[in-house]
Amino acid sequence: DFMHALEEVKAAFGVSEEELETAMKHGILHFSPFIENILKDGQRFVDVVKKSPTASLLSVLLHGPPGSGKTALAARIAKNSDFPFIKLVSADNMVGFSEMAKIQYLQKVFTDAYKSPLNCVVVDNIERIIEWSNIGPRFSNPVLQAIMVLIAKQPPAGRRLLVIGTTSQRSILRQLDLQQIFNRELAVPNINTQSELASVLREIGALDNEADMAECLNELREITGTDQVNVGIKNIALAVEDAREEQGNVAGRLAEVIAQQMAANQG
Amino acid sequence: DFMHALEEVKAAFGVSEEELETAMKHGILHFSPFIENILKDGQRFVDVVKKSPTASLLSVLLHGPPGSGKTALAARIAKNSDFPFIKLVSADNMVGFSEMAKIQYLQKVFTDAYKSPLNCVVVDNIERIIEWSNIGPRFSNPVLQAIMVLIAKQPPAGRRLLVIGTTSQRSILRQLDLQQIFNRELAVPNINTQSELASVLREIGALDNEADMAECLNELREITGTDQVNVGIKNIALAVEDAREEQGNVAGRLAEVIAQQMAANQG
Amino acid sequence: DFMHALEEVKAAFGVSEEELETAMKHGILHFSPFIENILKDGQRFVDVVKKSPTASLLSVLLHGPPGSGKTALAARIAKNSDFPFIKLVSADNMVGFSEMAKIQYLQKVFTDAYKSPLNCVVVDNIERIIEWSNIGPRFSNPVLQAIMVLIAKQPPAGRRLLVIGTTSQRSILRQLDLQQIFNRELAVPNINTQSELASVLREIGALDNEADMAECLNELREITGTDQVNVGIKNIALAVEDAREEQGNVAGRLAEVIAQQMAANQG
Amino acid sequence: DFMHALEEVKAAFGVSEEELETAMKHGILHFSPFIENILKDGQRFVDVVKKSPTASLLSVLLHGPPGSGKTALAARIAKNSDFPFIKLVSADNMVGFSEMAKIQYLQKVFTDAYKSPLNCVVVDNIERIIEWSNIGPRFSNPVLQAIMVLIAKQPPAGRRLLVIGTTSQRSILRQLDLQQIFNRELAVPNINTQSELASVLREIGALDNEADMAECLNELREITGTDQVNVGIKNIALAVEDAREEQGNVAGRLAEVIAQQMAANQG
Amino acid sequence: DFMHALEEVKAAFGVSEEELETAMKHGILHFSPFIENILKDGQRFVDVVKKSPTASLLSVLLHGPPGSGKTALAARIAKNSDFPFIKLVSADNMVGFSEMAKIQYLQKVFTDAYKSPLNCVVVDNIERIIEWSNIGPRFSNPVLQAIMVLIAKQPPAGRRLLVIGTTSQRSILRQLDLQQIFNRELAVPNINTQSELASVLREIGALDNEADMAECLNELREITGTDQVNVGIKNIALAVEDAREEQGNVAGRLAEVIAQQMAANQG
Amino acid sequence: DFMHALEEVKAAFGVSEEELETAMKHGILHFSPFIENILKDGQRFVDVVKKSPTASLLSVLLHGPPGSGKTALAARIAKNSDFPFIKLVSADNMVGFSEMAKIQYLQKVFTDAYKSPLNCVVVDNIERIIEWSNIGPRFSNPVLQAIMVLIAKQPPAGRRLLVIGTTSQRSILRQLDLQQIFNRELAVPNINTQSELASVLREIGALDNEADMAECLNELREITGTDQVNVGIKNIALAVEDAREEQGNVAGRLAEVIAQQMAANQG
Ligand SMILES: Nc1ncnc2c1ncn2[C@@H]1O[C@H](COP(=O)(O)OP(=O)(O)OP(=O)(O)O)[C@@H](O)[C@H]1O
Ligand SMILES: Nc1ncnc2c1ncn2[C@@H]1O[C@H](COP(=O)(O)OP(=O)(O)OP(=O)(O)O)[C@@H](O)[C@H]1O
Ligand SMILES: Nc1ncnc2c1ncn2[C@@H]1O[C@H](COP(=O)(O)OP(=O)(O)OP(=O)(O)O)[C@@H](O)[C@H]1O
Ligand SMILES: Nc1ncnc2c1ncn2[C@@H]1O[C@H](COP(=O)(O)OP(=O)(O)OP(=O)(O)O)[C@@H](O)[C@H]1O
Ligand SMILES: Nc1ncnc2c1ncn2[C@@H]1O[C@H](COP(=O)(O)OP(=O)(O)OP(=O)(O)O)[C@@H](O)[C@H]1O
Ligand SMILES: Nc1ncnc2c1ncn2[C@@H]1O[C@H](COP(=O)(O)OP(=O)(O)OP(=O)(O)O)[C@@H](O)[C@H]1O
Ligand SMILES: [Mg+2]
Ligand SMILES: [Mg+2]
Ligand SMILES: [Mg+2]
Ligand SMILES: [Mg+2]
Ligand SMILES: [Mg+2]
Ligand SMILES: [Mg+2]
Repeated sequence: DFMHALEEVKAAFGVSEEELETAMKHGILHFSPFIENILKDGQRFVDVVKKSPTASLLSVLLHGPPGSGKTALAARIAKNSDFPFIKLVSADNMVGFSEMAKIQYLQKVFTDAYKSPLNCVVVDNIERIIEWSNIGPRFSNPVLQAIMVLIAKQPPAGRRLLVIGTTSQRSILRQLDLQQIFNRELAVPNINTQSELASVLREIGALDNEADMAECLNELREITGTDQVNVGIKNIALAVEDAREEQGNVAGRLAEVIAQQMAANQG
Repeated sequence: DFMHALEEVKAAFGVSEEELETAMKHGILHFSPFIENILKDGQRFVDVVKKSPTASLLSVLLHGPPGSGKTALAARIAKNSDFPFIKLVSADNMVGFSEMAKIQYLQKVFTDAYKSPLNCVVVDNIERIIEWSNIGPRFSNPVLQAIMVLIAKQPPAGRRLLVIGTTSQRSILRQLDLQQIFNRELAVPNINTQSELASVLREIGALDNEADMAECLNELREITGTDQVNVGIKNIALAVEDAREEQGNVAGRLAEVIAQQMAANQG
Repeated sequence: DFMHALEEVKAAFGVSEEELETAMKHGILHFSPFIENILKDGQRFVDVVKKSPTASLLSVLLHGPPGSGKTALAARIAKNSDFPFIKLVSADNMVGFSEMAKIQYLQKVFTDAYKSPLNCVVVDNIERIIEWSNIGPRFSNPVLQAIMVLIAKQPPAGRRLLVIGTTSQRSILRQLDLQQIFNRELAVPNINTQSELASVLREIGALDNEADMAECLNELREITGTDQVNVGIKNIALAVEDAREEQGNVAGRLAEVIAQQMAANQG
Repeated sequence: DFMHALEEVKAAFGVSEEELETAMKHGILHFSPFIENILKDGQRFVDVVKKSPTASLLSVLLHGPPGSGKTALAARIAKNSDFPFIKLVSADNMVGFSEMAKIQYLQKVFTDAYKSPLNCVVVDNIERIIEWSNIGPRFSNPVLQAIMVLIAKQPPAGRRLLVIGTTSQRSILRQLDLQQIFNRELAVPNINTQSELASVLREIGALDNEADMAECLNELREITGTDQVNVGIKNIALAVEDAREEQGNVAGRLAEVIAQQMAANQG
Repeated sequence: DFMHALEEVKAAFGVSEEELETAMKHGILHFSPFIENILKDGQRFVDVVKKSPTASLLSVLLHGPPGSGKTALAARIAKNSDFPFIKLVSADNMVGFSEMAKIQYLQKVFTDAYKSPLNCVVVDNIERIIEWSNIGPRFSNPVLQAIMVLIAKQPPAGRRLLVIGTTSQRSILRQLDLQQIFNRELAVPNINTQSELASVLREIGALDNEADMAECLNELREITGTDQVNVGIKNIALAVEDAREEQGNVAGRLAEVIAQQMAANQG
Repeated sequence: DFMHALEEVKAAFGVSEEELETAMKHGILHFSPFIENILKDGQRFVDVVKKSPTASLLSVLLHGPPGSGKTALAARIAKNSDFPFIKLVSADNMVGFSEMAKIQYLQKVFTDAYKSPLNCVVVDNIERIIEWSNIGPRFSNPVLQAIMVLIAKQPPAGRRLLVIGTTSQRSILRQLDLQQIFNRELAVPNINTQSELASVLREIGALDNEADMAECLNELREITGTDQVNVGIKNIALAVEDAREEQGNVAGRLAEVIAQQMAANQG
C-alpha cells in the first residue's frame, strides 16, 4: 500500500518511466520512412508547446490499424519531450471504475498536469476508454464528453500541454465529433511490403539465415497470393516465438502465422 | 481552498474578468465587416436590456463553424456591456458533474444573476453542456430542459438579463426546439477569402515579409485548388507557431497546415 | 426563508396574484375578435364549474403557436374567475426537480386545490413540464402519467375544479393521448393580418405617427412578399424596444425584426 | 392521519362504498339493451364465483371507448355482488408511487382479498396503471407483469375472487398478452343512435320540452351530417351543464358540444 | 410468521405437496394418448437421473398453448418421481421482487436442490419469470441469464437434478437461445377433437345426459363451422360452471363459451 | 465457511483441480485427428508462454458449436500446462453478481494470476459472462469492456499468462471486436461422420455388440436421410443413458435421440 501510494505520487507529480518503457518494450524499429516522419512531426509538436508564446495547448491523434505501434510511438514522442510531467492514460488503469470514477480519474490527470509548466498526456486507445462497442452501438457518453472537454480546455496561465491520443477506430471518433477536437493527426502504418517485413525480421534476429528468410517470404507470398504484406509490428515478436516452438520448420510456421494475421485483419 | 472560495464569491456577485480575457486571448481582429456588425448588434441588444421599460429579458444565439470565434465574440459583447454581473457558463466547469449537479449549477448562475439589476450570462458551447453526441443521438434531456426553461424565464421585477448562447451545432439546436427559444440570432463567419486571411496573418505578424505572404497564399491556392478560404480564426495562431518550428520554410508549412484544416472542415 | 415560507402559504391556500400579473404583464390587447371569444368561452367554463350541480371538474386546453399569448389568456381567465384558489403551475418552478419531485409538486397543487370549494389550476406549457424533446423523442413518462391522472381525477365531494392547460405542441399531446383528457379546447391565434398588427402597434404606441406605421407595414410586405402576417403577440414588445435602439430608422428595423420572426416561425 | 388510517382499515377489510358510489355518481341509465346484458353477464360471473365448487377465480375485462361508462358498470357489478370485500384499484390512488410501490400496492390489494371468503377486485383503467404511452411506446413492464401474475393467480383454498378489469385500449392489452389472461370479456358501447341519446337527455331532464329536444337532435344531425351518434355517456352531464350556461340557446349549444365530442372521438 | 418460516423450511428441504396438488387440482384426464406419452417420457427422464452413472443433470421443456395443462403435467411428473426434494418455481412467488431478488430466489432454489441426492425443480411459465413482453420486446435479461446458467450448471458430485421447464412461448425461448439449453422437449396438446372434448365433459359430469352432450357438440360445430376443437383443458372446468349458471340451457351456453375460447385462441 | 475460505485461498493461489476435472469428466476421446491437433497447438502456446524471452502474454480462443467439447479441451490444455496458477472463470460462479461485482471478480482473477510466474486463465463461455441475448441484442457492455482490457493487458514484469477463451458464438464476438483481441484461434469440431460416432460409442461401451451398432447407425441414417452426422460429444453420454432406460430397443432409441439433437442443431 505504501508502494502503491508512492507510485501514485510519482504518477501525479512526474513521469512514470516504467509505463512508458513497457509501452515500447520491443523498441522502435525503423522499417519504413513513415516511422521517422511520425517521430519528427511529434517532436515539432513538442517544440511548439515548449516555445510558442501563445499556443499553450496542442493535441494530436495517432491513428492506425490494431497493432501498428500507436501506443509505442506515442510513448516515444512523450519520452523524447523530456517534459517534467508525462502521463499515459489507458483503460488498463480503469477496469472496475464506474463512469463517474473514470471521469474523475481523467480529470485528475489533467489537473495534475496543470501543476507543471510543461506537460504531456497520452490518452491511449480512446475507443476502449469510452467503452465503445459496435453493437448498439454502445459507449459511455459521459466519459466521451469529459474527454472532449478536457482535451480542448485551455491550460491555466503559464501551463503548457501536449495531448497525444491514440485510436484504431478513427472513423468512429470522427462520427463522435471527437476527431475534430484534435488539432493535428498522424497516421501510423502497418508493415506493408515484404522488404519492410524482412528488415524487421532481420533486426530482431527472427531467422537463422537469409535462406530461411527467403523461404519464409516465399511461403508467405504463396499462402496469401500477393506480394503485399499487411501486418502490425506488435504481432511480429509473438509470431516469431510461436514459430520457434514449431520444431524443424521455423520459417514455414512464421509465414503461416503472419498469413493468418493478415487474413484476420481483412476479417 | 480560501482562494477557491474567494473565486466563488467573485463569480457569484460580479464579473470574472479573467475568464472573459482568456476567452479572447488573441484579441478580436476585424478581418471582415461581419465582425463589426456582430459587435454592433450585440451592443444594441445590451442597450435594449439596459434601457427598455418592459423587455427585461433578451437572448441571442451566436452560431458558426468550430473555431470561428464565437466564444471570443460572446465574451467581447459581454465585457462591453459593463453590466455588474457577467458570467460565462461552460462545460469546462462541469466536468465530473452529475446531470443533477449540472442543472443546479446552471440554476445557481441564473439565481445569482437575479441579484444584480443588470446581468449577462454567456452559455458557451451549448452542445457540450447538453452532452450532445451524434451517435444515438445521445444527450442529456434534463440539462436541455433546464436550459430551455432558464433561458426563457422572465427575471423577477427590477432585474434585467441578457443571455448569449454559442453553438457550432445550430441545426441540432433547431431540432431540439432550443434555437426558437432565443429571441435573436447572429451568424459568426470563418475566414472566407485570401484577403481576409492575409489581413489576419499581417496583423499577427505571422510572416517576415510580403514575399513570404504571397508564397503562402499561392501555395494554399495550389494545394486546395481554389481561391476560397475556409478556416476558423481560432486555428490561425497555432498554425503560425507550428509553421515557425518548421526550419526554413515557414510560409510553405503554414499553407500546408491551413489546407489541412480546410480539408478537415469539409470532413 | 421566512418570506419564502410565507410565499408557500399564499400559494397553497390562495391566489398568487403576482404570478398571474407577470403572466400578462403587457395586458390583453383585443387585436382580433377571437381574443374576445376565448375570454367568453373561458368565462362560461368558470360558470359551469361554479354553478353546475354535478359537473365538479372541467378541463380546457389552450393551444396555439409559440408566443401567441396562451399563458396570458389562461392567467386572465383564471383571474376573472375570482375563485379563492388559483395556482399557475409551470416548468419554471420545477428546474432541478427530479421526476419524483415534479410529480409530488404537481400532486400537492391538486391536493391544495381540494381544500377550497372553488379552484382553478393552470398547467402552463405542458410540453416543458413533461420534458418533451423532439429527438428520440424523449419525455418524462411518469410526469406525463401523473398529469393524465391528476387532470382527470374527480375532486372530492363539495370541491370544484377548473383546469386550464396550455401548449404549443397540440399534435404531440394528441399522440400522447393527453389532449383527449381535456374536456374542451380553445385555439389561440397569432397576429394574422396587417390590420391586426397595426392595431397592436398603435395601442402600444410603437411608432410616432401613421406615416411611420405605413412605412413599417410596407416594408414588412416587401420583405415577406405577402400581405399576411404571422407573429406572436409576445414578440411585439421586444421587437419595438429593439427597433427603438436602431437610431434613425425605427419603422424599418421593426419591419425587419417582425419579418425575421415570421421566417423563424416557418422554420 | 387517524381518519386516513381508518380509511385504510376499511379498504383493507371491507367495501369502500364511497368510491363505488362516486364511480357511478350519475347512476346507470338503460339507454340500450346492451347495458342490461352487461349487468346480467356480470351477475352470472358473480354467481359462478359464489357457487362454483371448483372455479375459485374468474376475471372479466370491460372494454369500450373513453367515457362509455366502463368504470361505472364495473362498480355496479361489484356493488351488486354484495361480496364482503370489494376494492376498486385505480391509478388515481398511485400518483407519485414508484414502480415498486405500485406493485406492492397491487399485491396488497390481492393479499387483502385473500382474507375474505368472497372478493371482488376492480382494476380500473389498466392502461393508466401500467403507465402506457403511445410514443415509444413506453409502459411499466414490471407493473404489467405483476398485474398479469396477480390476475391469474389462484386464490388460496377457501377463497374466491372475481376480478373486473376495465380499459379503453383493448388492442394494446391484446398485444401485451394481458387480454388473454382474462377469462371473459364484455364490450361497453357508446351512445350510438339519436333515440338512445334522446332517452338519456330525457331521463336527466336536459331540455325543457320536446320541441327543444327535436331542435337539438336536428341541429346535431345537421352539424355531423349523419343520423348516427357516437358519444360516451360520461360526457353528457358536462355537455348539458355547459349548454345551460349558454344564455338563450341551450338546445343548439348542446348539439354543438356533442358534435365536437364526436369529432374529437374520430380524432 | 412462524407458519411462514415453517413453510420456508419445508420448501427448502423437502417437497411442497400442497403446491403440487394445487397445480393439478382437477386431476389429469387422459383425453388423448399424448397425455400418457408425456407422462411416460417424463418417467424415463426421472429414471435416467435416478440411475445413470454419469448423467447427473437432465432438463426438459414442456411447451404448449395457454391452458393446455403444462403446469399440471410438470407437477405430475415431479410428484411421480418421489424425489426427496421437489420445488415448483413460479412468477407467483416473485411478485414485487427486484431483478436481483428474483435471481437470488432462483439461485437459492438450486442451492437447496444441491443438498439432497435426488432433486426436481419445476421452472413454471418461464416467460413470466423473465418478464417477457411482446412490445419492445422487453424482458429481464439478468433473470434470463441466471436461468440459462442455473439450468445448465452441473450439480456437485453426488447430486442429481431433473429440471422441468414450462412455457407457452416456445418460439421466444428459441430466439433467446434458452430452448437449446434444455436437453429434451415435450409438446403438450390442446383438446383437439370433438371426441376428446366429449370424453373430458363426460369424465367431469358436465352435462346431465348424452342428449345434452350431442346438443352441445352440435351447437359448437355450428358456431365454429368446423369439427375440429381447439381449447385448453384448463378452461373446461370454468366453462362448465359458467354454463351451469345459465338457467335452462346449459349445453348451449357451454358450446358458446367453448366457441368464444376458440375464437380468442385464434385471436 | 472455513471450507469456503480455504477454497478461496486455493483458487487465488493455485490450481483448482476439481473444477478442471469436472469440466472433462467424460475424458477426452480422440474421435477425430482434429482433437489431437487442438491439444498439440494448445501445448505449443503453453510452451511459447513458458519459454519466450519477450512474449509474456498469449491468448487463444476455442470456438465451436454448443456441446462440441470446448470447455473440456480448454481444461485439458490448462491442466497439461502444469502452470502453478490455473483458473477457470465461468458464468456459473457469477450468478447473482451485479455488473460491477462481475468485473471485480474478473479483475481479481487476473490480479491473482499476476502473483505467480506462470499462469493460465480459462474464460469459459464468454457469451454467458457478458450476458449476451440475441433479442435486442442485449449484453453487459461494461463486462465486455473489462474482458477486452483484461485479456489484452500485458502482465507485469516477470509474469507470464496464457488466456484460453471459449465460445459457441464466434460471429458475435467478432462483431463485438472481442475476437480480434485474441492472438490465436482454434476451431473445435462436432462429431461429423458415422465412423467418428461409432468410435465414440464403442469407446464408452454404449451398445452391447456390433450388430446393435450397425442397427443404430442405419436407423440414424434413415431418420436423418444422410450419412453425415452433426452432434456434440457433450450430448452423447446423456443420449446413451436415455436410450438405456428405453426397455428393449436401446439402439433404436439412441438413433432417435441423436437425430433429435441434430434436428435441434439445425434449428
Ligand atoms: N516502428 C515501430 N513503431 C511502433 N512500435 C514498434 C516499432 N518497432 C517496434 N515496435 C514495438 O512494437 C510494439 C507495438 O505495439 P503497440 O502496443 O504500440 O501497438 P498498438 O498499435 O498500440 O496496438 P493496439 O492496436 O493493440 O493498441 C511495441 O512493443 C513496440 O516496442
Ligand atoms: N474576429 C475575431 N472573432 C473572434 N475571435 C477572434 C477574432 N480575432 C481573433 N480572435 C481570436 O480567435 C480565437 C477564437 O477562438 P474561440 O474559442 O472564440 O472560437 P470558437 O468559435 O468559440 O471555437 P469553438 O468552436 O472551438 O468553441 C480567440 O483566441 C480570439 O481571441
Ligand atoms: N390578446 C392577447 N393575448 C395574449 N397575450 C397578450 C394579448 N395582448 C397582449 N398580450 C401580452 O403578450 C404576452 C403574451 O405572452 P405569453 O407568455 O402569454 O405567450 P405564450 O403563447 O404563452 O408564449 P409561449 O409559447 O412562449 O409560452 C403577454 O405579455 C401579454 O400580456
Ligand atoms: N348505462 C351507463 N353505463 C355507465 N355509466 C353510466 C350509465 N348511465 C349513466 N352513467 C354515468 O356515466 C358516467 C360514466 O363514466 P365512467 O367513468 O364510468 O366512464 P368510463 O368509460 O370509465 O370513462 P373513462 O374512459 O374516462 O375511464 C358515470 O357517472 C355513470 O354514473
Ligand atoms: N390431461 C391433463 N393435462 C393437464 N392438466 C389436466 C389434464 N386433465 C385435467 N387437467 C387439469 O387441467 C388444469 C390444467 O391447467 P394448467 O395450469 O396445468 O395449464 P397450463 O397449460 O399450465 O396453463 P397456463 O398456460 O395458463 O400456464 C389443471 O387444473 C389440471 O388438474
Ligand atoms: N474429444 C473431446 N473433446 C472434448 N470433450 C470430450 C471429448 N471427448 C469426450 N469429451 C467429454 O465431452 C464433454 C464435453 O463437454 P463440454 O462442456 O466441454 O462441451 P462444450 O462445447 O464446452 O459445451 P457448451 O457449448 O455447452 O459449453 C465433457 O464431459 C468431456 O469430458
Ligand atoms: Mg495501443
Ligand atoms: Mg467556443
Ligand atoms: Mg406560455
Ligand atoms: Mg373509467
Ligand atoms: Mg402453467
Ligand atoms: Mg462449455
